[in-house]
Amino acid sequence: MATVAKSLASCIFCRIMKGEIPSFKLIETELSYSFLDVGPLARGHTLVIPKYHAEKMHELPDEYLNDIMPIAKKIALAQGLENYNILQNNGRIAHQVVPHVHFHVIPKLVDGDTEGLVIGWPAQSLDKGELKKLHEELSKKL
Amino acid sequence: MATVAKSLASCIFCRIMKGEIPSFKLIETELSYSFLDVGPLARGHTLVIPKYHAEKMHELPDEYLNDIMPIAKKIALAQGLENYNILQNNGRIAHQVVPHVHFHVIPKLVDGDTEGLVIGWPAQSLDKGELKKLHEELSKKL
Repeated sequence: MATVAKSLASCIFCRIMKGEIPSFKLIETELSYSFLDVGPLARGHTLVIPKYHAEKMHELPDEYLNDIMPIAKKIALAQGLENYNILQNNGRIAHQVVPHVHFHVIPKLVDGDTEGLVIGWPAQSLDKGELKKLHEELSKKL
Repeated sequence: MATVAKSLASCIFCRIMKGEIPSFKLIETELSYSFLDVGPLARGHTLVIPKYHAEKMHELPDEYLNDIMPIAKKIALAQGLENYNILQNNGRIAHQVVPHVHFHVIPKLVDGDTEGLVIGWPAQSLDKGELKKLHEELSKKL
């Protein structure tokens, strides 16, 4: 039974952390919880989630964000993975299904589209002038 | 000119950080560097990279891993993003092109496959018994 700093009673991931729904837990820290995905894209597909209910990554306090990737690293090392993807989706149109921040560790065990994450890469033709303008605009906000 | 704790002379990302190749830099910290991707999938596509040359995520010291996601968060907030993907690829068959760890922040500004990250999800039919076995196997290593 994990203590979840901020939880939502109706959230499936909050319920998993609170032990109301069983899970194949791997690593748990003070701030994070990880477990095997029951609908895996490949053997070893794991989720790492913060013990803080937020729908999107940018809503999480930094301390929770700091904690995630070292856990993903341990999971990759325990599986001896050489090829894998780390993926975190925000918003329905960006393929988010469960509205609690989660990081996927997805092994890519075989080449091709039959298992593991399948990636499409529709690179845009952005001109340098537009990139420069965007850079100036964002620099003012950062 | 950033000080890169461990760099590789032939690496394009190490060269960008050292100022040998220009970039549209956004946030720089002691451990990380971020800049606009010049071959973006969508307007605002940004890369966050560690100031430490490693090809794959699991090869990075934890301090570098800790530093990445809060930067990605700031970049999402500066752009006012609601929909976006965080992606980090390891290995050629997992779509890694540049062999220096990099995290993509990819805005998803419109629904559909014309821009932003395109995701294919070939979910496997894994039985509970196999998942249990895998869980036992990994638990011993963690």
